[in-house]
Amino acid sequence: MSTTANNLDEAGDFDATAYIANLGRAARVAAVEMARATTQAKNAALIQIATNIEGAKADILAANARDVANASGLEDALVDRLTLNEHRIATMAEGLRAISELPDPIGETTDLCFRPSGVQVGQMRVPIGVIGIIYESRPNVTADAAGLCLKSGNTAILRGGSESLHSNSAIAECISNGLNHAGLPAVAVQMLDVSDRRAVGALLAAHQWVDVIVPRGGKSLIERVINEARMPVIKHLEGVCHVFIDEMADRKKAFDVALNSKTQRYGTCNTMETLLIARAISDQVLPELIQAYSDLGVELRGCAETCALDKRIKRAVEQDWFEEYLAPILAIRIVDDIDQAMEHIRHYGSQHTDCIVTEDLGAARRFLAEVDSSSVMLNASTRFADGFEYGLGAEVGISTDKIHARGPVGLKGLTSQKWIVIGDGHIRT
Amino acid sequence: MSTTANNLDEAGDFDATAYIANLGRAARVAAVEMARATTQAKNAALIQIATNIEGAKADILAANARDVANASGLEDALVDRLTLNEHRIATMAEGLRAISELPDPIGETTDLCFRPSGVQVGQMRVPIGVIGIIYESRPNVTADAAGLCLKSGNTAILRGGSESLHSNSAIAECISNGLNHAGLPAVAVQMLDVSDRRAVGALLAAHQWVDVIVPRGGKSLIERVINEARMPVIKHLEGVCHVFIDEMADRKKAFDVALNSKTQRYGTCNTMETLLIARAISDQVLPELIQAYSDLGVELRGCAETCALDKRIKRAVEQDWFEEYLAPILAIRIVDDIDQAMEHIRHYGSQHTDCIVTEDLGAARRFLAEVDSSSVMLNASTRFADGFEYGLGAEVGISTDKIHARGPVGLKGLTSQKWIVIGDGHIRT
Repeated sequence: MSTTANNLDEAGDFDATAYIANLGRAARVAAVEMARATTQAKNAALIQIATNIEGAKADILAANARDVANASGLEDALVDRLTLNEHRIATMAEGLRAISELPDPIGETTDLCFRPSGVQVGQMRVPIGVIGIIYESRPNVTADAAGLCLKSGNTAILRGGSESLHSNSAIAECISNGLNHAGLPAVAVQMLDVSDRRAVGALLAAHQWVDVIVPRGGKSLIERVINEARMPVIKHLEGVCHVFIDEMADRKKAFDVALNSKTQRYGTCNTMETLLIARAISDQVLPELIQAYSDLGVELRGCAETCALDKRIKRAVEQDWFEEYLAPILAIRIVDDIDQAMEHIRHYGSQHTDCIVTEDLGAARRFLAEVDSSSVMLNASTRFADGFEYGLGAEVGISTDKIHARGPVGLKGLTSQKWIVIGDGHIRT
Repeated sequence: MSTTANNLDEAGDFDATAYIANLGRAARVAAVEMARATTQAKNAALIQIATNIEGAKADILAANARDVANASGLEDALVDRLTLNEHRIATMAEGLRAISELPDPIGETTDLCFRPSGVQVGQMRVPIGVIGIIYESRPNVTADAAGLCLKSGNTAILRGGSESLHSNSAIAECISNGLNHAGLPAVAVQMLDVSDRRAVGALLAAHQWVDVIVPRGGKSLIERVINEARMPVIKHLEGVCHVFIDEMADRKKAFDVALNSKTQRYGTCNTMETLLIARAISDQVLPELIQAYSDLGVELRGCAETCALDKRIKRAVEQDWFEEYLAPILAIRIVDDIDQAMEHIRHYGSQHTDCIVTEDLGAARRFLAEVDSSSVMLNASTRFADGFEYGLGAEVGISTDKIHARGPVGLKGLTSQKWIVIGDGHIRT
């Protein structure tokens, strides 16, 4: 069939399936080349893209200004995420250079050993293939996601929010030029250039072209992806994160970790939303914490026992324990012990990040082993749950799924391991 | 709501959703206990189940005889897979004992290292949770799958084929008793005891209870699962496996590997279905191979060049190159070189298992790195692609997916890795 820039069929309607098939076919061809690209070529592309982004700073800011002007109706937090400035552009470029310095995961062969049959069996790390990424507002995701997909030998099909279309296009141009410059296929990173929502539906249906979908955005996006995707999904649902202060906690560490986990940033998914504290230590730790939270303007909602401690604390309702506030609000519950704390986390948590503060080895060992979250912490702020902090370089997202990659998804999360068998004419008898 | 054995509602209709919710809730509760079960308890259960199966041999054979009697209308291969005998029962018990001897993957913590912030970050291997397994005919899958799920600290919800209902029930009883005996929850392995197909639909929709679905069976089952599952799927689609005889192949090794890959067993997914051979060596290797295949009654279908070599070879049509024969039929194509061979595998293959026979290091290196299949082999029969041969013990299936587990799925494929962060009161600044 003949196609035009926007895949309009004869009746003038947008043919989303044909549009995605065109991108998909190009991505599949490029994937073969990307899978065998040398580390040198991939790094050269990353560094060139960083240079291009710095060089195109004025153009990117102008494109972004158009997006921001169109976004006047949107809420402040969204406009903030959408807005680029010199610092954010510099950070994008730095991120790409940081990815170029990470070890290349592709080809790493592990556990190669002789089997009784005489063949050697091991595993080799390889790209997944074509990664679809659907995200909202933040244009910096365009550079981060492209960089990670490129370094891990994948091709990417990106669909940013329609509110950031101009910013994303400006960044995408820097990416294609960088790929070209390094002798890699420019279509290794493709960006959907239409805002028609049917294109997303067609992308989610295209399991013959797209190997995995990574959605980054609000609940309604994630729900749409769960319902419509016909390929595996690496998704982040929500972060209802807990800090549990065990009765054997050090008071100073408990104070520091509980305060930092809530107040270092309010709107991030690894921010603590519920503080659990063992009854035996609550009156030694809570009053000071309540004061500190109140000084910072954090609204506190507590269980009956917590409310009895301080009249500034509102009574929490059942829904509070399920809530991802993403705001200066904190739920506090006094629990009997570690068992009740872990039971609470199992029932109300979202398997994102949970922390115990304790000096007791037995409690630490149990919490680390038994709490089934993507990150489980001991005496450390939940805010550490982050690809940069974990040494992954950038992250393409934080997965709350239980298979493939859990937690921050970096280069390794964009690879798979195939089996390698080496014989010398061996046959099975 | 009140439930009866078969979840009949007041109108006498089967309420599949309620039926699955009951199993799911029980599985979720048992999953907490299984995740923290000691290696000792899990091994004790495995060994006891093996003993129970041997002890109940007469009952299992009687139950199986009922299934086989009911299966009179089914095709021979299916009846063969359904039929148990003393040897197959002994193999089931041996398989469970072998799983008890494998290292326990749970709790293994790797790559724990200090980050610049001062916290230690690593990864801990944990169970996935609740595994749903849908399979057909072979009752031995009941024991294998249960054993692997148990050892990896998961709970399982099993749905065998309705044709093997009595056999599976008899084996399931041995499993529950073994779990009980070891002090583990008997509901850690549950078997759907209804043949109503709506139960499968309800199971595939139950993403709140089931973390991953493993289908084992024919294409129509797999397609139903792809379309209906609302949770991740670890699936095996088909095995269109290739052997490529490179121009630098050793003639003896080429003969052995090509013959064994096709004829050691015809009906398995790791059997070669297409032989590719470099033109430069074809006249030195093919005549002898054609004779050997013909002596064993293998029907040969070739490209025009191959057909010119021997009048016994039929002309292959386009569909032959896509075909998983699972039968004594082989497609043969003469290719220019390794590039054309890899192009053929990319276009027609199913990313299951592909092998190169060569003495040339450069060709071996390229083939192993570039062929994107779950198992890639050098000078070894494709029949080695198997959980036992790879040292995994039993396998719950062979995955042709590209994320999570690829190839044979053993204990590790039934686990995930969570992040562990250890600090000493560390906060993020």
